[in-house]
Amino acid sequence: MENQETKESLQETLEQIIHLLDKQALVEDLVHHQEMPRRDLVESLVHKQHLAELQKKLDVLHPADVAYILEALPLERRLIVWDLVKAERDGEILLEVSDAVRQTLIAEMEPEELLAAAEQLDTDEIADLAPDLPKDVLQDVLDSLDSQNRARLQSALSYPENTVGALMDFDIVTIREDITLEVALRYLRRLGSLPDHTDKLFVVDRDDILRGMVSLKRIVVNDLDAKLSEILSDDVVLFHPEDDAGEAAKAFERYDLITAPVVDINNKLVGRITVDAVMDYIREESDADKFSMAGLREEEDFFASVWKSVQNRWAWLAINLITALVASRVIGMFEGSIEKIAALAALMPIVAGIGGNSGNQTITMIVRGLALGQISSTNMNSMIKKELGVAMLNGLVWGGVLGVIAYFLYHNYHLSLVMTAAMTLNLLLAAVMGVVIPIIMTRLGRDPATGSSVLITAMTDSGGFFIFLGLATFYLL
Amino acid sequence: MENQETKESLQETLEQIIHLLDKQALVEDLVHHQEMPRRDLVESLVHKQHLAELQKKLDVLHPADVAYILEALPLERRLIVWDLVKAERDGEILLEVSDAVRQTLIAEMEPEELLAAAEQLDTDEIADLAPDLPKDVLQDVLDSLDSQNRARLQSALSYPENTVGALMDFDIVTIREDITLEVALRYLRRLGSLPDHTDKLFVVDRDDILRGMVSLKRIVVNDLDAKLSEILSDDVVLFHPEDDAGEAAKAFERYDLITAPVVDINNKLVGRITVDAVMDYIREESDADKFSMAGLREEEDFFASVWKSVQNRWAWLAINLITALVASRVIGMFEGSIEKIAALAALMPIVAGIGGNSGNQTITMIVRGLALGQISSTNMNSMIKKELGVAMLNGLVWGGVLGVIAYFLYHNYHLSLVMTAAMTLNLLLAAVMGVVIPIIMTRLGRDPATGSSVLITAMTDSGGFFIFLGLATFYLL
Repeated sequence: MENQETKESLQETLEQIIHLLDKQALVEDLVHHQEMPRRDLVESLVHKQHLAELQKKLDVLHPADVAYILEALPLERRLIVWDLVKAERDGEILLEVSDAVRQTLIAEMEPEELLAAAEQLDTDEIADLAPDLPKDVLQDVLDSLDSQNRARLQSALSYPENTVGALMDFDIVTIREDITLEVALRYLRRLGSLPDHTDKLFVVDRDDILRGMVSLKRIVVNDLDAKLSEILSDDVVLFHPEDDAGEAAKAFERYDLITAPVVDINNKLVGRITVDAVMDYIREESDADKFSMAGLREEEDFFASVWKSVQNRWAWLAINLITALVASRVIGMFEGSIEKIAALAALMPIVAGIGGNSGNQTITMIVRGLALGQISSTNMNSMIKKELGVAMLNGLVWGGVLGVIAYFLYHNYHLSLVMTAAMTLNLLLAAVMGVVIPIIMTRLGRDPATGSSVLITAMTDSGGFFIFLGLATFYLL
Repeated sequence: MENQETKESLQETLEQIIHLLDKQALVEDLVHHQEMPRRDLVESLVHKQHLAELQKKLDVLHPADVAYILEALPLERRLIVWDLVKAERDGEILLEVSDAVRQTLIAEMEPEELLAAAEQLDTDEIADLAPDLPKDVLQDVLDSLDSQNRARLQSALSYPENTVGALMDFDIVTIREDITLEVALRYLRRLGSLPDHTDKLFVVDRDDILRGMVSLKRIVVNDLDAKLSEILSDDVVLFHPEDDAGEAAKAFERYDLITAPVVDINNKLVGRITVDAVMDYIREESDADKFSMAGLREEEDFFASVWKSVQNRWAWLAINLITALVASRVIGMFEGSIEKIAALAALMPIVAGIGGNSGNQTITMIVRGLALGQISSTNMNSMIKKELGVAMLNGLVWGGVLGVIAYFLYHNYHLSLVMTAAMTLNLLLAAVMGVVIPIIMTRLGRDPATGSSVLITAMTDSGGFFIFLGLATFYLL
């Protein structure tokens, strides 16, 4: 699994699989044109040979790599490949694919197949799949679990998506503090293997109350007759199931954690968080940010139908349409002025556009500062002051440049002055709004990242048109 | 370090520190108005008391938390706090602060202080600081190292920023394969401690050629008389220093790694990558994406001077200005039409705006698919077909809605038709460009994420104005 080969072979594997699927499609086409019955095709040797070759390729791939292949294939071919994947790998692969693609796979599976797939997984993994499972299958899964795991699954399902409870797993290795390292090592050898990402043991008392942790690193370097109580660290970073997942992710980054315990209100150990779950969370959040900034409701299957894509995108287009209509009505108020000086129509989008761009720069800074907790309403004033300074400087410089350009185009000295003034004023508006909008959204308890950009662009568009056309109507007419 | 307390206490600590700084500023103000000489102030008891209290608070904070506090303070106060930080912690804190803030701290430090700070760090950490160090300090640091570390630092400095070489560290624990577990454990106990994030030992031969790895997990569960060669895993994911850091990060996410070896072309072990370095890299990349999408050159110190901020932002504003000027000249071509029908001026920004929004949706999808390697020029045609379908549907629906609205506003049936047609055509343009622009940029070897959004907006603006005003001139006049 050498890296450069990993990457290339994954791309190559994808290409080889597409090639095999192409060949198979060719056979099917031939059959179709000669009107050979479909069941004969399925029986045909050539067909079988391609599928066997495909299956051989898939069997050696890591589940994450199979997921990658599935995501890269159009629906029909994706399902051919999915059929070839060994049933006992279904569960782990379903965990790895994106939400949109998972839905297309699950839609094609029989309830029994889904139940079998779920039964291969840990309870925390089943909880990740649960939103996409049909209700009756989920009930069957619950029925198939023993009481401890059923209780775990039910509690995992009860936590909202962005909490530590939704991120945690139950692969915890616990140990008592009153034993020596030698006894501990004997216990571990009896276990025979440890769960993935085990970098430490959780030291608990009789009632599962967390007393501290002992890292494997300490276990292998300390003397065998040392007591666990002597080498355990009690300054552990720990979480509660209802904690915010984003804050937990920040703690993982800040303190460079690999795993961390999750405890209930009585300090009883209930699970753990691992760095791989945190990394997936960070990636998903950052993707979700990008999607929502571009006006997509969620991640889209690249091969989704036109209709599915339209559904994913229409909401933001509708919002954009409304803000555009408002801006249009602002222009409509000044139609009389535009009839007299058509140059206004040509210049006004510049004023609005630069305002939007500058406002988005400000808002990006402020949203980040708010997310880090380094900006709050207490230093709002100093932020506004600074942004006003930047806006004033930019307005005078770029507004001045534009004034000069406008003069060369229209030879109207007053028009140039209006242009410069309007640019400056709209940039000042953008600066104030860029600071105020996200801070107010935060105070209202909303995520300042979502929609801020739409809101500021709406204001700098309508505002820019109003300022420019208003000034022009006042001075030039 | 309980989490909820961690978070709150960090915010609280910040507030307490600001409060202490406020009190101190008050004292200074009083002194200033009574014109007490400054050296008396420095000697004054009250002053000293505040500073001592501050220092006590800082001493118990994790370096990452001190960095957080420094980033949240305006320059003057930041430097007061920085002076209070114990000199032996300077190095690790400099590593944690953002690039912009690091520069403000380093600018205030004497060469000797910088040299002392660097000497506390590992060579890979010095390499991270190096770009911000004055040249002569860096030379002094190099001179102060032994030959092995000097060679390491020089090689680390020689790798470009986005390579595995720039991410790797040298905290590797190596071991031979021909020994038993018991001997290995004795060796580890002699070492006494292991570097952070050690989850496995690297098994090498006499020439440091990597033979495989043994995880601590396996070490603690296997029998003492087992040979390392029996329990080592040789299907290791490994990297070369010149590999792309982004690909390495994807491999860490895909295969859930904690550490991975870095080898040279002869398979000789040269370093390792740890998951915390990867996580920092992912965070930085995602932040850099957000900044460049908003038109910021890089991360900005929240308390940067107006002048610094203007420098960080001007380039994108200038590009935006040029594209806006082009769009303006397109409108200028149709000034005659606008003079006759001023309604055109009010409606045209809607056509352009919706086109830009829709184009950005498409481009976000395609850029993501390209980054994942799931979209390539081979399936460009099927992508274009799908996006054209989405655009056609959106164009007819939203264009139709707008046509109706335009009719109610202007009672001109022809104008409504032009509106609907122009919307549809501009959405089709946005669809094609949204697919083609990022694919062409990738083929030219450029990052499709940077600037794609600006480019598509420029096209849908100018294109939208041209289509709408062109159609209107042709049909209505």
